[in-house]
Amino acid sequence: MPQSRPANPPHSQQDNSVGVVVPQVYRHDKPLTLQCGVTLPGYELIYETYGTLNAAKTNAILICHALSGHHHAAGFHDTAEAKPGWWDNCIGPGKPIDTNIFFVVSLNNLGGCHGSTGPRSINPDTGKPYGPEFPNVVVKDWVNSQVHLADALGIEKFAAIIGGSLGGMQALQWSIDYPQRLHAAVLIACAAKLSAQNIAFNEIARQAIASDPNFFAGHYATEDKIPDKGLMLARMIGHVTYLSDDGMREKFGRELKSGDLGRGADVEFQVESYLHHQGRSFSQSFDANTYMLMTRALDYFDPARDANDNLVEAVSKASAKFLVVSFTSDWRFAVERSKEIVDALMAAGKNVASAVIQSDHGHDSFLLPIDRYTKVLQAYLRRVAQEVVGE
Amino acid sequence: MPQSRPANPPHSQQDNSVGVVVPQVYRHDKPLTLQCGVTLPGYELIYETYGTLNAAKTNAILICHALSGHHHAAGFHDTAEAKPGWWDNCIGPGKPIDTNIFFVVSLNNLGGCHGSTGPRSINPDTGKPYGPEFPNVVVKDWVNSQVHLADALGIEKFAAIIGGSLGGMQALQWSIDYPQRLHAAVLIACAAKLSAQNIAFNEIARQAIASDPNFFAGHYATEDKIPDKGLMLARMIGHVTYLSDDGMREKFGRELKSGDLGRGADVEFQVESYLHHQGRSFSQSFDANTYMLMTRALDYFDPARDANDNLVEAVSKASAKFLVVSFTSDWRFAVERSKEIVDALMAAGKNVASAVIQSDHGHDSFLLPIDRYTKVLQAYLRRVAQEVVGE
Repeated sequence: MPQSRPANPPHSQQDNSVGVVVPQVYRHDKPLTLQCGVTLPGYELIYETYGTLNAAKTNAILICHALSGHHHAAGFHDTAEAKPGWWDNCIGPGKPIDTNIFFVVSLNNLGGCHGSTGPRSINPDTGKPYGPEFPNVVVKDWVNSQVHLADALGIEKFAAIIGGSLGGMQALQWSIDYPQRLHAAVLIACAAKLSAQNIAFNEIARQAIASDPNFFAGHYATEDKIPDKGLMLARMIGHVTYLSDDGMREKFGRELKSGDLGRGADVEFQVESYLHHQGRSFSQSFDANTYMLMTRALDYFDPARDANDNLVEAVSKASAKFLVVSFTSDWRFAVERSKEIVDALMAAGKNVASAVIQSDHGHDSFLLPIDRYTKVLQAYLRRVAQEVVGE
Repeated sequence: MPQSRPANPPHSQQDNSVGVVVPQVYRHDKPLTLQCGVTLPGYELIYETYGTLNAAKTNAILICHALSGHHHAAGFHDTAEAKPGWWDNCIGPGKPIDTNIFFVVSLNNLGGCHGSTGPRSINPDTGKPYGPEFPNVVVKDWVNSQVHLADALGIEKFAAIIGGSLGGMQALQWSIDYPQRLHAAVLIACAAKLSAQNIAFNEIARQAIASDPNFFAGHYATEDKIPDKGLMLARMIGHVTYLSDDGMREKFGRELKSGDLGRGADVEFQVESYLHHQGRSFSQSFDANTYMLMTRALDYFDPARDANDNLVEAVSKASAKFLVVSFTSDWRFAVERSKEIVDALMAAGKNVASAVIQSDHGHDSFLLPIDRYTKVLQAYLRRVAQEVVGE
């Protein structure tokens, strides 16, 4: 009789987990010229893979991360890790991004602070960390750097490139710049460009960081300081915009942290306590220069700009099929913004599916296991599998 | 032949301006016990009046100000003043709050920084400015302090008490606490209590101020410093939430301040430049401790809390008639929040009129001369005049 699994195995050993994963590093030893005109002498990208690349190399999916994301999207770095990767509910055996079918690649973007070349890396010209001297990186640069990673992995054409928020922008840019290299693009909670309100929130976050006396114009590492208060504020601002008014009402209401109102204590409402905690833990792990860089990349994204401000013209080069998903309570990248993308793709005669998902969780919805969202992704990717892998 | 007026007289001499006004100070020499339990030995309120109080003293209107407002609501302090008071488009001869009919009282609230007793005032116990030691003041306290001003002016019953945003909360509190002392309450862009999202934005603003190294836990005056960067951030956060996404899109779009994108300049989009300007000028004039106090008063406001969390029960004591006005694009105090007030007033059997005004200008709409809004206010107050003054 075969030995049965323990009743409650650790998460990393559960059937639908990709288990323990080991990050790898791709080193690009040739120069990369960025959109800002600066040439990096080379760069490294840290990445993880889940599932197995088939012999024909047709079953690869690329995951592009959002503002504060990184390469660790699924599984565990070791069996003791308390929380799995940031999209573990979506990536794994039998999950929507099914690692029984697909080979999934997830990286940390250039300019990041989780292991890829970025402001914390050593500038070979000076022997010191780049810090604020790290060049401006935009979405097109990320796509270009990801193409080299795909080349190194022998992936000529991705079955799908998938991303939420800033990740969706990368998937869209891929479809425009490298139309032959992806079969499908999945754009989730995304926009073809930021609104003035989006830019304003990003600018306030940057201003919060820049105003921190420990920022030293970005040279905080040299001073052995961390602009943690500024980063904390930046994260708090961001976080409120990722949630919805209704979702926050449901989660926190006006619950008091303790006792009675009006005594002027520092933190009186649960929502304040929650935001402080979120902000503080973020400020301990994220790099301030990377935050500046990533928010700027968000602001700059505007593929129509290179096509006479005409999004239809911009996407006309794409040959991928598209799935565009948005969430009813997302006010940072509202349903209307996704509709603009859908309309442009339709006008350009592309193959577009779209879904508006009912959710109270605001922009954060794209990270959550919402039933209809999960089903839509699963159904779409099964179809993709049939088309490209024949499974 | 009578001498004609010059073609373009200064604003202060135009027919529909209340002209030059001189602020007055009401000194209350008796103790005032606040909701937080602290007793102020006395206090001063700076105020202005426009129009003439009739012999029966039945034509008085009280204007309650919002978060960053003050007593100077209409007219000019001198003929050289570039801009009139903050609600000049609404108050004056022939305007909705018609000074040919009404006697208008507008004050700076207790705890303010424009001349009323507040954190900048000298604490008689110490001979030094109160600073952060100024006691917590809530909406009920403002109403109580305003009652004494009304008594001093001989006004037994206001024809109307009118306010937008935090000002509307004061009008609502008046109607509950002093039902016999107002004929009508006009609540504009208001809410019966803040949502978790509202509280979160306020907390981030406070955190921005508290994080400024020049804040010195509120004792910045003693240190001869101003936490201007924190105040600037706080105002920028507030300001974005007062505007709407659509309104900002229309006003700024993604217009660049100059030249090309992506070179990493500090300010590249017009919206950034605008917010910086707004934040900077606010930080030069407003008191940080007052900002803390006023945002806390917003957070704490919750009249239903004293009535078993039942708003219908809370407003049941009111005898005023109500006009409740909201604006379609206001997401800080959304139309839905006004509807909650209307529904509660209706359920309590009160006389309620309401209007939802189409506007792209977000929460700021309540300050703007929007045609239908102006007409609604004018019509409602003409009716009030007929009822209480017989005009």
